[in-house]
Amino acid sequence: MSNYKVIFLPDEKEVEVAEGTTLLEAAEKADIYINSLCGGEGLCGECRLQVTKGKARADKNAIGFFSKEEIENGYVLACQTKVEDNLEVVVPAKSRLEKEKIITEGVTLTYSEPESISLHKRPSDPASFFEPLVSKVYLELREPTLIDNVADIDRITRELGKKTRYSSFEISLTCLQNLAAKLREHKWRVTATVARHDGMGRILQIEGGDTTERNYGLAVDVGTTTVVVQLIHLKTGKVIGVEGSHNKQARYGEDVISRMVFACSRGSLEPVHEAVITNINTLIQTLSGKTGVAIKDITSIVAAGNTTMSHFLLGLMPCSIRLEPYVPTATIYPQIVARDIGIDINPQGILGVMPSVASYVGGDIVAGALACGLADKQEVQCLVDVGTNGEIAIGNNDWIVCCSASAGPAFEGEGSKWGMRATRGAIEKIEIEDGQVTCETIGKAKPRGICGSGLIDAIYELARNRIIGQDGKLNQSLNDKRIIMEDNDPRYTLVFPKETETGEAITISESEIGNLIKSKGAVFAAMKSLVDYVGLTFDQLNTIYISGGFGSSLDIPKAIAIGLLPDIEPKKIQFIGNSSIMGARMALLSTPAFEKAISVAKKTTNIELSNYLPFMDEFVAALFLPHTDTSLFSSVHY
Amino acid sequence: MSNYKVIFLPDEKEVEVAEGTTLLEAAEKADIYINSLCGGEGLCGECRLQVTKGKARADKNAIGFFSKEEIENGYVLACQTKVEDNLEVVVPAKSRLEKEKIITEGVTLTYSEPESISLHKRPSDPASFFEPLVSKVYLELREPTLIDNVADIDRITRELGKKTRYSSFEISLTCLQNLAAKLREHKWRVTATVARHDGMGRILQIEGGDTTERNYGLAVDVGTTTVVVQLIHLKTGKVIGVEGSHNKQARYGEDVISRMVFACSRGSLEPVHEAVITNINTLIQTLSGKTGVAIKDITSIVAAGNTTMSHFLLGLMPCSIRLEPYVPTATIYPQIVARDIGIDINPQGILGVMPSVASYVGGDIVAGALACGLADKQEVQCLVDVGTNGEIAIGNNDWIVCCSASAGPAFEGEGSKWGMRATRGAIEKIEIEDGQVTCETIGKAKPRGICGSGLIDAIYELARNRIIGQDGKLNQSLNDKRIIMEDNDPRYTLVFPKETETGEAITISESEIGNLIKSKGAVFAAMKSLVDYVGLTFDQLNTIYISGGFGSSLDIPKAIAIGLLPDIEPKKIQFIGNSSIMGARMALLSTPAFEKAISVAKKTTNIELSNYLPFMDEFVAALFLPHTDTSLFSSVHY
Repeated sequence: MSNYKVIFLPDEKEVEVAEGTTLLEAAEKADIYINSLCGGEGLCGECRLQVTKGKARADKNAIGFFSKEEIENGYVLACQTKVEDNLEVVVPAKSRLEKEKIITEGVTLTYSEPESISLHKRPSDPASFFEPLVSKVYLELREPTLIDNVADIDRITRELGKKTRYSSFEISLTCLQNLAAKLREHKWRVTATVARHDGMGRILQIEGGDTTERNYGLAVDVGTTTVVVQLIHLKTGKVIGVEGSHNKQARYGEDVISRMVFACSRGSLEPVHEAVITNINTLIQTLSGKTGVAIKDITSIVAAGNTTMSHFLLGLMPCSIRLEPYVPTATIYPQIVARDIGIDINPQGILGVMPSVASYVGGDIVAGALACGLADKQEVQCLVDVGTNGEIAIGNNDWIVCCSASAGPAFEGEGSKWGMRATRGAIEKIEIEDGQVTCETIGKAKPRGICGSGLIDAIYELARNRIIGQDGKLNQSLNDKRIIMEDNDPRYTLVFPKETETGEAITISESEIGNLIKSKGAVFAAMKSLVDYVGLTFDQLNTIYISGGFGSSLDIPKAIAIGLLPDIEPKKIQFIGNSSIMGARMALLSTPAFEKAISVAKKTTNIELSNYLPFMDEFVAALFLPHTDTSLFSSVHY
Repeated sequence: MSNYKVIFLPDEKEVEVAEGTTLLEAAEKADIYINSLCGGEGLCGECRLQVTKGKARADKNAIGFFSKEEIENGYVLACQTKVEDNLEVVVPAKSRLEKEKIITEGVTLTYSEPESISLHKRPSDPASFFEPLVSKVYLELREPTLIDNVADIDRITRELGKKTRYSSFEISLTCLQNLAAKLREHKWRVTATVARHDGMGRILQIEGGDTTERNYGLAVDVGTTTVVVQLIHLKTGKVIGVEGSHNKQARYGEDVISRMVFACSRGSLEPVHEAVITNINTLIQTLSGKTGVAIKDITSIVAAGNTTMSHFLLGLMPCSIRLEPYVPTATIYPQIVARDIGIDINPQGILGVMPSVASYVGGDIVAGALACGLADKQEVQCLVDVGTNGEIAIGNNDWIVCCSASAGPAFEGEGSKWGMRATRGAIEKIEIEDGQVTCETIGKAKPRGICGSGLIDAIYELARNRIIGQDGKLNQSLNDKRIIMEDNDPRYTLVFPKETETGEAITISESEIGNLIKSKGAVFAAMKSLVDYVGLTFDQLNTIYISGGFGSSLDIPKAIAIGLLPDIEPKKIQFIGNSSIMGARMALLSTPAFEKAISVAKKTTNIELSNYLPFMDEFVAALFLPHTDTSLFSSVHY
């Protein structure tokens, strides 16, 4: 079998690959990341490349994705095209999942950490104790004598008892095997890796010498759309790396429902489970490669995800989650050895999964509640996570109620032609004045699409300028050259072709605006229903924390003005970004925080909105900008 | 490669085997069990067969085991002889490890169960609670509704909490996987298998329907010489089968020391570990086959063995046990999943190993202490286990001290030409009157050898008849035709050739008697040292329990008379047989008993006799029948 050279442009990166390698794999080898939403199945058509030198055939299954002209110009799908010649390939901007994107995601997902919710800053709160789930303790043991000849492991636990707050220890068999030789070889200087498990210390491994510096953990956000992994030095608590990628489960369905249908009827659980494991392992490999941290020194993981994602992660059948009465297999998940489900860290390393509340209020929300200290204060606070589902939790140190509403992934960039996640080139701020549109993009790059915060701005600015009505319909009588008609769906042009990276106009259509209004309506209606349920008004909420993938910034007044958020003092609303990974990291760094998460999950009451009549009325009333009941938004005037 | 037929006589069993198969393997295939102490290494010379038809060559290494005449008559070692012809082979009685023998061992090892020490008869004692380590609980769950839609596992634990004394449960991941489907398929009627683990209930499996009848456990005695397995119905506590076999580790050394040397220097740990696992699995297979109990319904094992055996069982390096200061890897062993070390029961089934006290006071003694209630009463009691080591424990509900003395396996039938374990054909009782010897054998069979109780009788009767002196020397001036000379070692004939199964005389030699005196001296000296150590006299002991493989009966007055046991009222001494498996069974049937065993192991003080000067003096003083200090045996008169 021959090897061929592939040159990727405009990067001018050259790699040599074996015959039959796909262009997608070749690009990865060249450190060029190509969009591949379907995970290389030839289904999404995102991985378009143009072959400019050498012979390459577009796979016949891929032909549907291209025009005749494109095929003549050498366009192929990277995932379906095998290298059988020396090639020169151009990677179009739109196909590029830029390397920066993955890093940017990390940056984007960095949460603002207000004083009140940061780790280690609330000494009265057990969750703030720095006590990693897995810690390493260096021991200098006395050599045994006839007078003091206790068993080797007792010599270790005797010393560990002095150096930790555990009085009893559980020991894995693997850790005992070969222990005698290790102790003697290293002259009784060893490091014990200890996890907390059911209130006891669980000794995971004994290493020779002092290895306390080499102790790392992972906080993992298993999102329906993306998987993000933070690598954390457990001795200092510092985040030393972060990587993210699309959730490879996408090939089995875009949302949790279709993935459940795949796992329970069309296909089987195994591939969906394995997809996310592969995701996580790939990210770990990348992090390990970039930071030089050895896999064996990663001793723990805390993962947070919605209930379905947690089930997929652990290989639990999610089938009854989907159907009334919506019953998951578990909401509190057992602490397991990560290797048992194929996650490649230290063979004894453990995996904790953030507990869920119910089928549609998952560990991501519990992690968020932990991160924003929902259960810590006497004042009532609120957490709103705007993702595929809009999940709301309201509570204080006494009680918490929560609910979930299908909001759709509109604010995460899905469901509209130019919607995109909050990455480089995404429009995140928009202003319209006298028919002039001013946009700001992430990374100050040429515009590539619009992320959540940009969409909120767009709707607000369009309404304020009366380009759309309060019903979201475009005012076609305006005779604005920015309004064009496409497939019977009028569109407003935000950026003209010459100013964009792709050379195509970036637009938003009336039906896309309609979807966004439905999404914001669902989130608001859920909040309103929950506040009513507990007999409060929005004014009585001390703080509203907003999490979700809107982008690095969210214009709170504009979010209020379109009726996504309630009309309260904007300073009482805080955007905290990815609160799921934030909570996972807290739990990784603080065993009491993990335990607190479990108590939060247990004490939270879930209101099934599908069963709650007032919600439907609230939803219909909210399908207007800002709302049909203007008294709820007295400060908003267009 | 050709196949050949081998006919075994006198059984007239014929098997066909491939060329190159050893006669030992061929015999096994024919269900004929041949003695093979060394495990087929050609070292022990026990597996002698006579080839009467067909060509077979005695391996040249085996020649040393036969006289010239025997070689001419076709004698070969079964383990060293490969089948290269159709053969007819005679199995001499002495070479036969009869199938009945294995069963008999089980019967032989059945303990007497005096009122005072039987299970369930001491209501005030936590150890007597019937609460198996693993129990099955049948649950009829209510179907979930929107009002009551807790997670599946919470529905189970909620109900389990009512039916067991656990308030919290730990769940294995395997048990959660596929749980949702199982519950719905079986219409919410399931059986939970629950183990106790660190004070919590650990749910091992969920089965559809009511399977509470199908719950079995194994009590295993991992002896240096033999491995015995009892199969117990955990719902009723009944022993429904017992099997025993030689410990296959014998091929790596006769005693614990030589096996440690093999594992730590000459060879490696792995084969020694695997030998005992194979042993146990074979016995489980046999029990399963005979009783019809399915492997998957065996949910738990409690094993008891000395510290070295426990280390070999769990795959722990025993190297430092052997060398001063005699440090084991562990004395309290973690509860593990039995499959993790290759024991073939239910994949989730657990293995508990009885805790040890120190390197030379193992889980067998702790099991014995548990079985005889050493830690239960205010009165001081004593347990003496006479095996390869003589282990002694003395104590009450407040304190326990113990020690171990190398007694050698003399009373287990090793180390003398006609010594054998207490199985069919073994002489267990001897009386000598006016030069006439009367013998009783186990199973009333023709005599094949002498077991421990027979040896004690022999020494006593020889001394009483002044055939040996109090120094153990044969009185050769007697001119008794029973006294013969062999290899410069005078022998006394107990049974003449025509009365034995083998056709050879059964004898005992002066040097063999010397070894037995050393053994009894070591045991007595250890008891004396320990009693002195705690400032008591033998008279102050409320009861002395004797355990060991002497045979089904032990003549206590004769054991006193030879100075093996102290001269106290015989009725205060009880022979309890295999107390190790008895304690293992108690722990299997009663979690509080297992926990008590751990507290016994922890509170027991071990006295290292190798470090204790008075012991050596006591030992020398005890090398006499009954003792050099006759005041210690005032009731004994020859």
